[in-house]
Amino acid sequence: MVRNKRRTGECIKVILIFLVLSLTGSALAVNGDKTLLNQAKQIFGPLPKAMISEKNPVTPEKVALGKILFYETRISIDGTVSCARCHPIGLYAADGLEKSIGNNCKLNPRNAPTVFNAAGEISAHWIGNRMDVEDQAKQAMIGPPSFGMPSYEAVEKKLRGIKGYAPLFKKAFPEEEDPINVDNLAKAFGAFVRTLVTPSSFDAFLKGKQTALAAPQKSGLKTFIETGCITCHSSEYVGGQIYRKFGVAEPYWQYTKSKNVDEGRFAVTKNEDDKYVFKVPVLRNVEMTSPYFHDGSVERLHDAVLIMGEVQLAKTLADQEIEEIVLFLKSLTGQIPDDALKVPLLPPN
Amino acid sequence: MVRNKRRTGECIKVILIFLVLSLTGSALAVNGDKTLLNQAKQIFGPLPKAMISEKNPVTPEKVALGKILFYETRISIDGTVSCARCHPIGLYAADGLEKSIGNNCKLNPRNAPTVFNAAGEISAHWIGNRMDVEDQAKQAMIGPPSFGMPSYEAVEKKLRGIKGYAPLFKKAFPEEEDPINVDNLAKAFGAFVRTLVTPSSFDAFLKGKQTALAAPQKSGLKTFIETGCITCHSSEYVGGQIYRKFGVAEPYWQYTKSKNVDEGRFAVTKNEDDKYVFKVPVLRNVEMTSPYFHDGSVERLHDAVLIMGEVQLAKTLADQEIEEIVLFLKSLTGQIPDDALKVPLLPPN
Repeated sequence: MVRNKRRTGECIKVILIFLVLSLTGSALAVNGDKTLLNQAKQIFGPLPKAMISEKNPVTPEKVALGKILFYETRISIDGTVSCARCHPIGLYAADGLEKSIGNNCKLNPRNAPTVFNAAGEISAHWIGNRMDVEDQAKQAMIGPPSFGMPSYEAVEKKLRGIKGYAPLFKKAFPEEEDPINVDNLAKAFGAFVRTLVTPSSFDAFLKGKQTALAAPQKSGLKTFIETGCITCHSSEYVGGQIYRKFGVAEPYWQYTKSKNVDEGRFAVTKNEDDKYVFKVPVLRNVEMTSPYFHDGSVERLHDAVLIMGEVQLAKTLADQEIEEIVLFLKSLTGQIPDDALKVPLLPPN
Repeated sequence: MVRNKRRTGECIKVILIFLVLSLTGSALAVNGDKTLLNQAKQIFGPLPKAMISEKNPVTPEKVALGKILFYETRISIDGTVSCARCHPIGLYAADGLEKSIGNNCKLNPRNAPTVFNAAGEISAHWIGNRMDVEDQAKQAMIGPPSFGMPSYEAVEKKLRGIKGYAPLFKKAFPEEEDPINVDNLAKAFGAFVRTLVTPSSFDAFLKGKQTALAAPQKSGLKTFIETGCITCHSSEYVGGQIYRKFGVAEPYWQYTKSKNVDEGRFAVTKNEDDKYVFKVPVLRNVEMTSPYFHDGSVERLHDAVLIMGEVQLAKTLADQEIEEIVLFLKSLTGQIPDDALKVPLLPPN
């Protein structure tokens, strides 16, 4: 609750900044690099070292277990699904598919977003039907199109069946008598995912290094701010803090190649106002995680930016504006933590 | 051809050693550790640093490309299959399934063996219907239950569609004008797989370090030699050099939990003598790659050893003998090369 209030506060702050900027006649346009940096510092912010949680403190032992479990296929109903299947680290933790294909070839309802920096979001999943990364991991175990297990007990039985897990869970949860359970599995996953922070040249810029962004990237950042993209895409994560209707100005499906109309968060709240509402995605590493939108309906980043201008802001962005925004967005492609790039050895059958 | 002759020569040598040992009334049993080491040196041999090929010299650039391609799902028909799917590095490059599940949930006809040390085998696949690791990789692209692509051209089109591959292929094959093609993909895969050598404590022993094997492991090795396991499981790879009927003494399916009878290499040669004939598997890392046999029908290594005694050698091994053989086999669990444990970054869409 406290966290949500803070997020709402931040969001109001960003909207106010945007309004002030608009009212003062695009003050940014006439100011220099220094002003741009100061504005950017207020709107965004460099990524933290890890995305902490009071409920689930990150410990090296939990992270180590979580990383092993991230690659574990044997806890899925058909033995082919692991977190890494839909979030392969080498592809910036997104799978390149419109919609992920889970156990027994079941299609997931929406595009798999990267898990990098995802623990900084207000919730998990496009429609916010998972509280946080721990909740996401836990529910994925019994999610029909993901791991597809019949029950949490069945997952726990699989884990107990692989001898090597008992000491790993014991290390991660030393105070518990019998630590092999799905809640601890979720905590371990969560701890690992909370370390997946990918600082980029944009963070160097936000910390004051003017040369970290090239001139066209700075122009792109200016346009990103002035056009109003920051109304939704703000914070350290450049998104992920609010829900917003996809298609504020016009229905999104008239612009995307969507195969069907997704009512979004309405499915969760049954509130008419939540029709076509989705969580605003984090734009960190967006260059690397095509295809775009909740249904993966758009392949090129250029097209995605164009569509956002049309349907969210009722603005037809010029080609050069789009190109510069895309260049700015490329500055959000970050460095994957070394440890995440190392494959863990799994306990044998 | 030359290679096959050499292998046959080696195999005859091993059989002769075995016969001499048998005829001299288990000479090993009364000799000490030194004799065991000398025998082992003649029968096996430490692993090489890389499994070289005259046709496909291993270069760092080919290895780097091959490692990236090893994780590439976007060259499969449904976007979910990569080499790593059935050969996950963290599970010792085997997937823990009876039979691998490929594109669109298609079941593969046989168990996926580890690709570690696999380039040292006489051929690839259980029935030897792939010449070598390069041939295996190439044919997997259009294999209906694996990558499932309609043609090699379709694979090449996918590769060309991912911009980042052009410079990587150019680096790996600098002398070619237009190097993006499936033959080069196969060479790159092959080069990577040829580096996947996993030396273990058994190699240290073979190099003269007596303490590398514990006393019960040495007993297991003795039994492994004296019982006749080495008739098939010899060379640096402890197998992989010959084809042999599974069920020399008795039909294998009377002992395994096989769901159907597989006629093995008969499918390739149509020669009656090849019925139920399979390539003898490499036993390197066998502890880590359950389930066992061509159909993954046996889960426990203990049971697999017991069955081999019965159906191949017409011998009922005592429990203690089996346990010691299993302990010896655990000395074949090797060290995965550091570089193979690092996830490569793939070029984005």
